Amino acid sequence: MIEQQQEESLYSLVEDFFRNEFSTDNPLITEAVRRMLAAGGKRLRPRLTLLAAEAGGAQPQEHLPLAAYMELIHVATLIHDDVVDKADTRRGVNATAVDYGNRISVLAGDYLFAWIFKNVTAQYPAPIPHILSATLADICDGEVLQLRALANLDLPLSGYIDIVLKKTASLFAASAECGAIMAGTSAQRIAALRDYGLSYGIAFQMKDDLLDMTADEMKLGKPVGNDLRERKMTIPLILALERGDPEFRARVERFYDGGEDEIAGIIVEIGRHGGLDGTREQIAQYAERAKLSLTPLGSIRARGVLAGLADALTRD
Amino acid sequence: MIEQQQEESLYSLVEDFFRNEFSTDNPLITEAVRRMLAAGGKRLRPRLTLLAAEAGGAQPQEHLPLAAYMELIHVATLIHDDVVDKADTRRGVNATAVDYGNRISVLAGDYLFAWIFKNVTAQYPAPIPHILSATLADICDGEVLQLRALANLDLPLSGYIDIVLKKTASLFAASAECGAIMAGTSAQRIAALRDYGLSYGIAFQMKDDLLDMTADEMKLGKPVGNDLRERKMTIPLILALERGDPEFRARVERFYDGGEDEIAGIIVEIGRHGGLDGTREQIAQYAERAKLSLTPLGSIRARGVLAGLADALTRD
Repeated sequence: MIEQQQEESLYSLVEDFFRNEFSTDNPLITEAVRRMLAAGGKRLRPRLTLLAAEAGGAQPQEHLPLAAYMELIHVATLIHDDVVDKADTRRGVNATAVDYGNRISVLAGDYLFAWIFKNVTAQYPAPIPHILSATLADICDGEVLQLRALANLDLPLSGYIDIVLKKTASLFAASAECGAIMAGTSAQRIAALRDYGLSYGIAFQMKDDLLDMTADEMKLGKPVGNDLRERKMTIPLILALERGDPEFRARVERFYDGGEDEIAGIIVEIGRHGGLDGTREQIAQYAERAKLSLTPLGSIRARGVLAGLADALTRD
Repeated sequence: MIEQQQEESLYSLVEDFFRNEFSTDNPLITEAVRRMLAAGGKRLRPRLTLLAAEAGGAQPQEHLPLAAYMELIHVATLIHDDVVDKADTRRGVNATAVDYGNRISVLAGDYLFAWIFKNVTAQYPAPIPHILSATLADICDGEVLQLRALANLDLPLSGYIDIVLKKTASLFAASAECGAIMAGTSAQRIAALRDYGLSYGIAFQMKDDLLDMTADEMKLGKPVGNDLRERKMTIPLILALERGDPEFRARVERFYDGGEDEIAGIIVEIGRHGGLDGTREQIAQYAERAKLSLTPLGSIRARGVLAGLADALTRD
């Protein structure tokens, strides 16, 4: 209960920082970023930074700007995700953004990346700027791999994990690692917190994939089955295909080739082939691994909160 | 003649570096960047870096990677320039890129930015990483301002200069400044070389605007009048509008509102209203200012080459 309250106060710290302190030199872009921040989000990346700083023996609130930069890197990638291809409108995805918004989205995201690095290089010592830029390279690399793997029904689970490590887990790992580094803690604790971030990030992406098929649309804020519509290879689909039912595979193949089908019907099939339960098992395994990584921290408050965040991913 | 040869050897140094040493960790992106590099370019930004290093008393070839990063920042912005809006296809601009290439262009540019910063933060001391990220922020800021000024017939020359300082001159200034800093020369010489880069960059953009209306299409590699087609406010147009002929203004207004017109006819009118000659005068003034900036360098070889680059902008 106390942990719950302290967690909420970390969240409020981040929110207050964004509301009161965040501003770039470009009013148009400040406005765009504020709009994206106001749309919500659990601020998990900055919370990892603050918890890792606490685990390293520092006062979390002293590391708020660094924590905020982690969220802003995420926001900048989301802004660039809004850039769409003409092809997407044919599939009914994001039909408005393609009209006039692409150039502005690219520039706003670029500006935000540059602004973050401009500040980080002025305010933080090595290796923080290097970790952040290497992480951004990983994220982009992972997204390129994901694009190349679209509709590739032969993508194995290991290929999926490689993509997720780069596109999602790398930023969670960097968030925790940088908080720990700035706290000035031992190399062993820094590595423990980074490892936690990696496993947590993988479980987080798997949960995201699962929710895309199982959440109700009001909560999700977008139509269920969006990943299928975008022909992504998500873990529920990969695990269902592994079962090797040729009829099911042919159905997915037809749909990914542009055929008409009911998304809801495909999701039922994925469930029937163990894709949803299999994903829940994988999430539980990576959440467990994340908690295990924290062993070197001993028995401290932050460890309990981090373990709680990992456990939360295993609940529907 | 000797200077000409040494200049060519600087150019070859850069080319050889790109051909033999350049490679990112992502083969797809390495390939894309190599294609863009192979399409040509005068490598002016890296040449400024190498000449500034020489002016600062260093061996230019020792600073080849830094010089290459300057060109690569430029290449990454070009990759992002390829991202188009659906609206553009209606105007006949770049109709293929909108089809499937937008997402890949965004990711390739992002990856290249991140890769550059990852290397720069690992290989160069403060303030180099900070200068590069601040410069990228300026470039994006300038491009946002340019987008907002599209078809704004009231944009004054001073507003144009503000945009050009950020979107174009900032990278030339940073290229010269960083070369001088790495050579370890005096603050006065560093400032002189940075100032040269700023004035050179403004003259360079003005020349680019002029060529868009006067060059032959084979040399230009794109149709003449492309800037007008994109409704940009370039300096020849701004100077022609300053003359205050209401009929000419109305004609441009109609065209920028989407009306049909002959681009060639509008360019003739711009010339008739002194827009082309006025631009030539402005180029000469900024080239002169660039050369004046170099006074603190005294009489050294690199100063002559830099002066020659500025003079070259004044020849048609």
